[in-house]
Amino acid sequence: MLPNGLVADLRARKAPAIARAISLVENGRTGFESLLSILHPELGHARRIGITGPPGAGKSTLTEQLVRRYREAGFTVAVVAVDPTSPFTGGALLGDRIRMESVALDPGVFIRSMATRGSLGGLATSTREVCDVLDAAGFDRILIETVGVGQSELDVARSADSTVLVLVPESGDGIQTLKAGIMEIGDLFVVNKADRPGADRLRQELEITLGIRAGQTFRHVPAHHGPRAGRTPPAGPSEPAGWLPPVLATIAARGEGVPELVAALDGHAAYLERSGGLDQRRRQRLYQRTREVVERAARQWIWQDTQAESLIRDRLDGLAAGRANPYEVAAEVLEGLKQGSRV
Amino acid sequence: MLPNGLVADLRARKAPAIARAISLVENGRTGFESLLSILHPELGHARRIGITGPPGAGKSTLTEQLVRRYREAGFTVAVVAVDPTSPFTGGALLGDRIRMESVALDPGVFIRSMATRGSLGGLATSTREVCDVLDAAGFDRILIETVGVGQSELDVARSADSTVLVLVPESGDGIQTLKAGIMEIGDLFVVNKADRPGADRLRQELEITLGIRAGQTFRHVPAHHGPRAGRTPPAGPSEPAGWLPPVLATIAARGEGVPELVAALDGHAAYLERSGGLDQRRRQRLYQRTREVVERAARQWIWQDTQAESLIRDRLDGLAAGRANPYEVAAEVLEGLKQGSRV
Repeated sequence: MLPNGLVADLRARKAPAIARAISLVENGRTGFESLLSILHPELGHARRIGITGPPGAGKSTLTEQLVRRYREAGFTVAVVAVDPTSPFTGGALLGDRIRMESVALDPGVFIRSMATRGSLGGLATSTREVCDVLDAAGFDRILIETVGVGQSELDVARSADSTVLVLVPESGDGIQTLKAGIMEIGDLFVVNKADRPGADRLRQELEITLGIRAGQTFRHVPAHHGPRAGRTPPAGPSEPAGWLPPVLATIAARGEGVPELVAALDGHAAYLERSGGLDQRRRQRLYQRTREVVERAARQWIWQDTQAESLIRDRLDGLAAGRANPYEVAAEVLEGLKQGSRV
Repeated sequence: MLPNGLVADLRARKAPAIARAISLVENGRTGFESLLSILHPELGHARRIGITGPPGAGKSTLTEQLVRRYREAGFTVAVVAVDPTSPFTGGALLGDRIRMESVALDPGVFIRSMATRGSLGGLATSTREVCDVLDAAGFDRILIETVGVGQSELDVARSADSTVLVLVPESGDGIQTLKAGIMEIGDLFVVNKADRPGADRLRQELEITLGIRAGQTFRHVPAHHGPRAGRTPPAGPSEPAGWLPPVLATIAARGEGVPELVAALDGHAAYLERSGGLDQRRRQRLYQRTREVVERAARQWIWQDTQAESLIRDRLDGLAAGRANPYEVAAEVLEGLKQGSRV
């Protein structure tokens, strides 16, 4: 079923094979599940790093800088950039990717943009599957860059081993929103464009918020005692029970603060390994993934292999006229499914 | 099954009944589908208006201003504010709502915050169902305010009859992102905080982008011929085949530009009615809703009434060790479902 030699070429990290495998997976074409099944036992080599934040925070520039640093250290790097989709065209905007040209020609670097998809599958699931392909291809680091602050985007970021939340001084205005929606998914926080006014204030606000949160969550961390910028949290036998997310300052356009971010990411990876958090995250991910695959398969079954779709279309006039309602039509469909009705 | 007198009190627009009905629906408690089934034939009175945009764009302030205007015109108004959820606490941030205090005591106004939910149901579906409750309660206008630019948030906004995309001059930086992700869901565009530097530039950029888009989509609209700010598009026999989204300027904090926005919204409603777009949108919504209800019911069936969940947990060690993979486990679950396996 799978194209000849695809798996072997993928393991050899040949770019055309990687691109082909990703397309297969991203579009859910015949054989994609066999491919992922074959690759499954080989996963776990790559360190997956999510980079998220509001539009205009400089995520792409920061990602590019991280790629350079990792390359200098001898690691291979894959970048998965999740772009917002136009609901009309279904296409992804690749503009930001152009800025990564400086690293795009390096054979140790693979860059892929992904479009948000509405229907079968879902963005988070297919992004994770694409990362699996890259993991199996042997990349040492996978950087997952997601624009936006929405729910599906958070899901994507959360599926990484470490998640970096990138903010800019202008984000300070929305800090109340951020507190609830985003503060809790970042393992590391970056205030980018740190030479702009308001950067120090934002960093302080972040640290206070994180300090409070840590104080409530982990008894050993004194409240209001946030970590200091540019430093990884203290390690060793006296360290607190939890991870205290560091707040770093960067000027990504000039590469400033990026070595510190790399060090902080190493610190988080070490923490995860030490604490058993990595195994736990990956186990949780597997559980979640399996549930998602079940749901996707169920949707596919319902809409493609049963009469559900045409039954709804048949009832649409009645629905519009108020003679029928979505709940009784759905109940009818479900009854059919439970009785194993198929085409 | 339903609380005594709930439907009657809801139809009489009694606030406690509305709140109770919404809670029932939002939490998917027993009887919520019966309630929605009963209300279904009564829907279609309210005009549903989505208000979306990035954090800090002033959506709440603008919403409050719209509420005041509609109240002055004698309309009853419901506000559904979709707040981002903290993945840890599960709660919604209600801070913004406090600012609506000036209208919150008016018995002709009903304000409800909704939390983003991850599991069963999904945010978009349950927001739509809450709007149905408010529609059945007889509100003339339902304002659906959604923070963020994510996929689920877009889905929420898209389920309105008219969607207002609110931007601020600072959004200009992200305009490339906006072009692809957001431009195409707005029926009306608002540049809020229009007294700030960059407001004119943003408006021009929006108009050019919209002009180009319209030029490509509708043959009768000359390319690069964007609508002018503060004015609704021309109506009448010579109007183009499609809707040309107007770009308006507001200073919501001072109420400036709000009457023009109300007029533009009326213009869009009239356009929808004239063109048959309203029926089409509502039909499409019913079709989509029924599909969502089927999927929700299917998920509920799979995870609550079958052995799927415990089967996955049983396989988790094998999955983690690479002996099993998510796809074969999912296939096993699906096979069971198709054969009508139940507890």
